[in-house]
Amino acid sequence: MSRRSVFEVDRLALSRIADGGAVLGSGGGGNPYVGRLMAEQVLTGGKTVPVVDIDQFADDELILPIAMMGAPSVMQEKFPSGKEIPALVAMMERLMGRKVSAILCIEAGGLNSTIPFVAAAAAGLPIIDGDGMGRAFPELQMVTFTLGGLTATPMAMFDDKGNGATFDTVSNKWTERLARALTIEMGGSAMVGLYAATAGQMKPYLVRGSLSMAHRIGELMAEHGAGAARVLAETYKGAVLFSGRVRDVARRNEGGFTRGTVAIEGTGDFRRREVTLSFQNEFLAAEESGRVLATTPDLITLLDANTGQPVTAEMVKYGLAVNVLGLPCAPIWRTKEALDLVGPRYFGLDVDYRPL
Amino acid sequence: MSRRSVFEVDRLALSRIADGGAVLGSGGGGNPYVGRLMAEQVLTGGKTVPVVDIDQFADDELILPIAMMGAPSVMQEKFPSGKEIPALVAMMERLMGRKVSAILCIEAGGLNSTIPFVAAAAAGLPIIDGDGMGRAFPELQMVTFTLGGLTATPMAMFDDKGNGATFDTVSNKWTERLARALTIEMGGSAMVGLYAATAGQMKPYLVRGSLSMAHRIGELMAEHGAGAARVLAETYKGAVLFSGRVRDVARRNEGGFTRGTVAIEGTGDFRRREVTLSFQNEFLAAEESGRVLATTPDLITLLDANTGQPVTAEMVKYGLAVNVLGLPCAPIWRTKEALDLVGPRYFGLDVDYRPL
Repeated sequence: MSRRSVFEVDRLALSRIADGGAVLGSGGGGNPYVGRLMAEQVLTGGKTVPVVDIDQFADDELILPIAMMGAPSVMQEKFPSGKEIPALVAMMERLMGRKVSAILCIEAGGLNSTIPFVAAAAAGLPIIDGDGMGRAFPELQMVTFTLGGLTATPMAMFDDKGNGATFDTVSNKWTERLARALTIEMGGSAMVGLYAATAGQMKPYLVRGSLSMAHRIGELMAEHGAGAARVLAETYKGAVLFSGRVRDVARRNEGGFTRGTVAIEGTGDFRRREVTLSFQNEFLAAEESGRVLATTPDLITLLDANTGQPVTAEMVKYGLAVNVLGLPCAPIWRTKEALDLVGPRYFGLDVDYRPL
Repeated sequence: MSRRSVFEVDRLALSRIADGGAVLGSGGGGNPYVGRLMAEQVLTGGKTVPVVDIDQFADDELILPIAMMGAPSVMQEKFPSGKEIPALVAMMERLMGRKVSAILCIEAGGLNSTIPFVAAAAAGLPIIDGDGMGRAFPELQMVTFTLGGLTATPMAMFDDKGNGATFDTVSNKWTERLARALTIEMGGSAMVGLYAATAGQMKPYLVRGSLSMAHRIGELMAEHGAGAARVLAETYKGAVLFSGRVRDVARRNEGGFTRGTVAIEGTGDFRRREVTLSFQNEFLAAEESGRVLATTPDLITLLDANTGQPVTAEMVKYGLAVNVLGLPCAPIWRTKEALDLVGPRYFGLDVDYRPL
């Protein structure tokens, strides 16, 4: 089957996707610097990877989602060895008993929108224009595919030392529990392949166009620099929720996640106000003395006020001037069933979700 | 290939093996009551399982070791569902790409000398007269096969809920680390298959005859009751190291193991003396005010002084009258290389091994 690509991704395009993915990552999804470094290693000599719409695939073709799992603050220091990805693709093909036709990003993120390109480039495969979240979420069961009844397993995971494991679990929540325990033992991060399914099974649930969107966001950031927060809010029907300086960061690695809070003291129009962001890998809520500005599943992203670059939850530091950008989530996350999976109450926040 | 069996195991014989296995288990290897209950479920209507010498197998035939992994104090309360074992055998055959010719016990123990019979009975396979330790040890890499350079992986594990996992690791120590982490997340115990290898690979390293020996020990116990400790010491060139009452037990579940100490106050010939046993699933050392009576890899086993029944480390209770039986380990454990793997210093005990 000959396929038309939406666009071809070279080194520059992948660098834009890393930036835009980090915005969609909502504070998580891995560090865009790591994503950019990996891109430079893999797309050498003008090599490109085609990004293809899922409708270009026959319903029975196999699609393999790939991601890096773990605590982002570990991932930025514990670089993949490079051998995990070919081992992962080979193992998933063995488990599924057939060849993979395309790679998919499980989530959007600086790292998780780019690492699947390493797999695609190595295997000579295209990558689907979409993902399973339209943002990043901390736990494996938090994908649109769970809403569609798809199973996370068979799943494979490999660490940087060469240890591999596979799972076959009774629920996607159990996949999360077991894989999280192993990720911790593997040193805090691992490369994973899961939710392998046919294009036909994925089509109704895929968040479509998210790689194109990440790329476009990256371009807007390059074009507008410090003004990117305002432009992104206008372009994607979001809002600049707050602007200020980081007054305090509490961050800990716990249970295989990076968890904590960021307190921001208002500046300019937001003077004399203070906002607190809570996070579990991703930002979950932005609150101002009891008033909720935004919560999961809507996207909450920090942008450096001076450069317009995204600041993930594991990178944010005392004193940094930031804009808090809120963007609406993919519509599929706004049903009752979806909110049970990824809404604020799942994470122990005592608030109802109110769309941005 | 038609094979001559050493003996046929029916319900009574399996009950004897559970008792004798618990003696060889050196305080670990799982609860013999659980082993006996499982035996009664599986060997109904006069059904038997043949115990066969490994020399009856061609060098290229595949042998599958099976065990229950975890903290014994969890195992005695969290009974297997029964579905784990067929799932395990099927998964291991898929991983090895071929059929299994016989089942093997990884270790001796009240539970781990009997649970492999469930697998053998279900699959219609014989069981090998031997094991990989000649006793029980707490960690997966502690088998004679590690000395022979055999790899623990591919390994499969299943829990009572139906969750399965497989491993392919860079060392047998890494198999232990990853599988232990998953065992904890699975609730503290899991059924495992590992060290699958050909009869030819196993022959030089197998501890031979240990099922016959467990059976014989069980018979001697039934025959001699409270006098069993003395008879076993005479028969197997061991010694009754101490007799007394349990004065204190400290026990905790930690890192997927049951760990602690047992203090015993001497009675009779041992009046005015006190011995302390330390354990990590299995008893590791018996010490009397700085003097070492016995250490791993030699076997240290507690027998109820009134009944002669073995008392595993997770069952021992305040006030119980006990005999401390020491038995020599299989000779393969007495080399320098073997002592690095299972000797007292590995477990953090600051003593050299001195054979019983």
